Amino acid sequence: MTFSEKLTSRLQSSNSLLCVGLDSDLARLPERFQELEQPQFEFNTWVIDQTHASVVAYKPNLAFYEARGAAGWKELALTLQYLHSKHPDIVTIADAKRADIGNTNNGYVTAIFDELGFDAITLHPYLGKEALQPFLDRTDKGCIILCKTSNPGSGELQDLELSSGLKVYEQVATTVVENWDENNNCLLVVGATYPEEMKKIRQIAPNLFFLVPGIGAQGGDVAATVAAGQNDTGDGLILNSGRGIIFALDPATEAYKLQQEINRYRTV
Amino acid sequence: MTFSEKLTSRLQSSNSLLCVGLDSDLARLPERFQELEQPQFEFNTWVIDQTHASVVAYKPNLAFYEARGAAGWKELALTLQYLHSKHPDIVTIADAKRADIGNTNNGYVTAIFDELGFDAITLHPYLGKEALQPFLDRTDKGCIILCKTSNPGSGELQDLELSSGLKVYEQVATTVVENWDENNNCLLVVGATYPEEMKKIRQIAPNLFFLVPGIGAQGGDVAATVAAGQNDTGDGLILNSGRGIIFALDPATEAYKLQQEINRYRTV
Repeated sequence: MTFSEKLTSRLQSSNSLLCVGLDSDLARLPERFQELEQPQFEFNTWVIDQTHASVVAYKPNLAFYEARGAAGWKELALTLQYLHSKHPDIVTIADAKRADIGNTNNGYVTAIFDELGFDAITLHPYLGKEALQPFLDRTDKGCIILCKTSNPGSGELQDLELSSGLKVYEQVATTVVENWDENNNCLLVVGATYPEEMKKIRQIAPNLFFLVPGIGAQGGDVAATVAAGQNDTGDGLILNSGRGIIFALDPATEAYKLQQEINRYRTV
Repeated sequence: MTFSEKLTSRLQSSNSLLCVGLDSDLARLPERFQELEQPQFEFNTWVIDQTHASVVAYKPNLAFYEARGAAGWKELALTLQYLHSKHPDIVTIADAKRADIGNTNNGYVTAIFDELGFDAITLHPYLGKEALQPFLDRTDKGCIILCKTSNPGSGELQDLELSSGLKVYEQVATTVVENWDENNNCLLVVGATYPEEMKKIRQIAPNLFFLVPGIGAQGGDVAATVAAGQNDTGDGLILNSGRGIIFALDPATEAYKLQQEINRYRTV
C-alpha cells in the first residue's frame, strides 16, 4: 500500500482531518503518569485509547523522547508498536525534522521508517532533493517537507524574496511540486498561523496534502486555516493539535470537538 | 568556560584542525567489533585511543546511532562518557542537523547538550533565529549552522539568487554574522567540495569557525580547502574526516598524516 492510499483510506473511514500531536513532555505529564516506570508510553496509550476514533493521524515530536535518551526512545518504539497492533489504519507521523546528506540519511530511513515503523516523517528542505532521495524513494512512506513553518520568526529566511520574484517558501513549494514529488509521496508543512501564505501555497500545490501545526496554543484559527488550505475536494489538510488535546482533562471530548469543528468549515 | 574558549584551547594544545567523524555505521564495522555486545561503543573507544593526539574534535553523526534505536543511543552516551573521562579537553560535536520551533528545541537542548554532554550541535537554518534561540542562548555550547553543504545537490536551494543579489547561502552567512552570533558561539558548515563558495563565505564571515565536511571520500581537496577557508591567523577551520580514518586499517597513522597535511597548507 502506498502512503497516499493509507492516508486517503484513513481519512475517509475516520471522516477526520485531525492529527493529535503526542508531544508527551515528561515534565508536563499528569502526576499519576510521572510515577510509572514507562511514563511516556503509559500516557500515550491513555491518550490513544480516548482519541483514536477522532483522528486521521498521530504525530509524536521526537524531541520530547530524545530528551530522555535511550529510555525515551524505547517508549516511543512501544507507542508505535501499540498503534500498529491496535490501530494499524491510523497514519503515524514522525515529527523529526531531519535531513542529512544522502548516505547518512539511510540511518534515519532505517530508524524512523523501518525500526520504529512510522508512515511519514517531517524533513528540512535546505540540502536539496539529491540529499533527501533515500526518503523520497520510499513510495510506501510520506515525506513532509518544511515549507512555511508556524513559528513567529519563520519569515527570516522563508520570506526572503528571490530574484525570480518568488519568496523562498513559494520556491520550496514549487520545487516539491515540480521536481520532488515523482513518487506521489510528498506533503508540505504549512503553519496555521500564516493563512495568507497558506492560500498562496495551495495555488502552487493544488494536489498536495499540508500538515498544519499551529492550531490552538500557537494561535492559529481553525476557520481561517480550513478556508485557506482546503483543496477542491474539501480536504488536503492534516491539522495538528498537541497540548490542547493531550494535556486536557478530557482528551476524548477535546479531540471530538476539534474534529467536528474542522469538519464544519469544510465546504465539500 | 565558553565554547569558544574550549575550542581555542584544544586547537592550540593539539596543533590540529582535524575532526574525526565517528560515523560508526554498524554494517561497516570490522567483524571483530560486530560480534561484541556494544559494537559501536567498543569501536569508538578503539578509534579514540588511536587518534586522540591528532584531533581538535570528534563528531559522531547521530543517524548511525539512531538506526539502532535505544541500543545505539546508549552506546553514543557511553562514547561521550568515555571522552569526558579520558579526554575532557577534546571538543565534541553532535552532527544531528536538528531544528524545531522554539519550545520543542528545549527537548533537543536537554538531550544533546545536557544528557549526552556534547559541546556543539549542527543546526538547520530554515526556521530562523527565533526558533533556534534555546540553542543560541547557551554560551557554553557551539551552534554550527548549515550554510553551504558538501553534497552534490546542495545548490538546489542554497544557490538560489535573492532579489538583493546574494545567494541564499551567502544570506545565511550574513544573517548569522550580523544577527545570530550575539553570544559568540556560532559556526558555519561549509563543504570542502565548494572552495569558491567557501572563499565568499570567508569574506562575509572573517571571524567565524567553519566546520568542513567533504574531505576525502566526498572528493574535497585539503590544499584548496585550507587556502579558501583559513582566516587571517591560519585557522578558523575544523576539517572533518570520517570513513577515511575510522575504517582505515591504521586509524592512528591516517589521522596523524591528515593532521600534518592540513598544517602544511596553513600559512600562519
